[in-house]
This record gives sequence, structure tokens and C-alpha cells, in this order.
Amino acid sequence: MDRGRAEVLAPLLKALADPVRLRLMSLIACHTSAEACVCDLTPAFELSQPTVSHHLKVLHEAGLVERERRGVWIYYRLHPRASRVLDALSDLDATVGASR
Amino acid sequence: MDRGRAEVLAPLLKALADPVRLRLMSLIACHTSAEACVCDLTPAFELSQPTVSHHLKVLHEAGLVERERRGVWIYYRLHPRASRVLDALSDLDATVGASR
Repeated sequence: MDRGRAEVLAPLLKALADPVRLRLMSLIACHTSAEACVCDLTPAFELSQPTVSHHLKVLHEAGLVERERRGVWIYYRLHPRASRVLDALSDLDATVGASR
Repeated sequence: MDRGRAEVLAPLLKALADPVRLRLMSLIACHTSAEACVCDLTPAFELSQPTVSHHLKVLHEAGLVERERRGVWIYYRLHPRASRVLDALSDLDATVGASR
């Protein structure tokens, strides 16, 4: 991996390196039509809707999710390439954390 | 992804979310026998050997690399499951960063 690519990927991983944002990515991927608005996602967390919106904004700014406004709601879906990373991460189970 | 797994993965991603550590992972994977010591890795960076050792320690503490002492050197190799994440990340090219 060259330096340029590493410098593109590092902030993307930083955006993902948060338990709430990881779960948001997974919830969006599993939601009907693989898209969701903040109103669909907030009930899964013990967090306010503005806080969940903030985490969605971080994911969007990192290029991990795409968004589209329809009426009063914004709908989020995973960037296609982000889906593959999520699959790989799902496979990276607790044994990694336990192997220290 | 449930909350427990998200809380295991988040610190692991945080450990990866650094351009030097991403390149270290890639360099170790590509080195002869897929293992390397700090003396093999330092020349690729404009960093001191203690700084590179520090980054290797962060990767080890996150469970992303395994290490083994042989004589005066410690040899590092990727944890097998980390290899798959690295493959997925290599595929996640600059278009993600460019899609904002």
C-alpha cells in the first residue's frame, strides 16, 4: 500500500472506529431496500436523534454512506465499496481481540 | 452487528486508522515469509526505529499482528484474520474518499 492510499484510508477507518457508527453501517445494510433514515435507526440506540444524525454525518463525510433527501427525511445507504469492508469486518470476530 | 462485537472492532479499527500503521501492515504482509522485524521496516519511513517500534506495538496490542523474539530481534506477522481485512481495505480505493 503506497503512502497516498494509506493517507486516504486512514481517515475512513477513523470514521468507522466507533461502536455506534459500526452498528449504524450494519443496520443500514440490513434495513429494507438497504437504506434507512435517522427515524429508522434511532430506536436501536440509547441516543438522541441529533446524536445519531451526527454519527451519520461523520460516515457521510468519510464517503462511507451516500444520502438522498426525500421530503423531510434524508435516506442513507452504504457506498458500494464500503459494503465489502463491512463484510470483512463482520468476519473479523472476537478472536482477534482475544489474541493479544 | 451487535453491540458487543462493535465494541471489540472499534478499537481494532482505531489501531489501523493511521497511515504509518496501514503501511506497516501491508509491508509485513508483502515481506519475505510474510514476516518482518523493525530493521526491515524502518527504511520505508522517514521515522526513527523507536517510532516504528511504537506503531508495531499498537498493532500488536490491538491483536492485528503476532510477534516472536529471535535473538535480538522481534519478528512480526499479520494475525491471519487481519489479512482478510487488509485485502478488503486494499480494494477500497481512492474513489471512496472522492465520493463525498
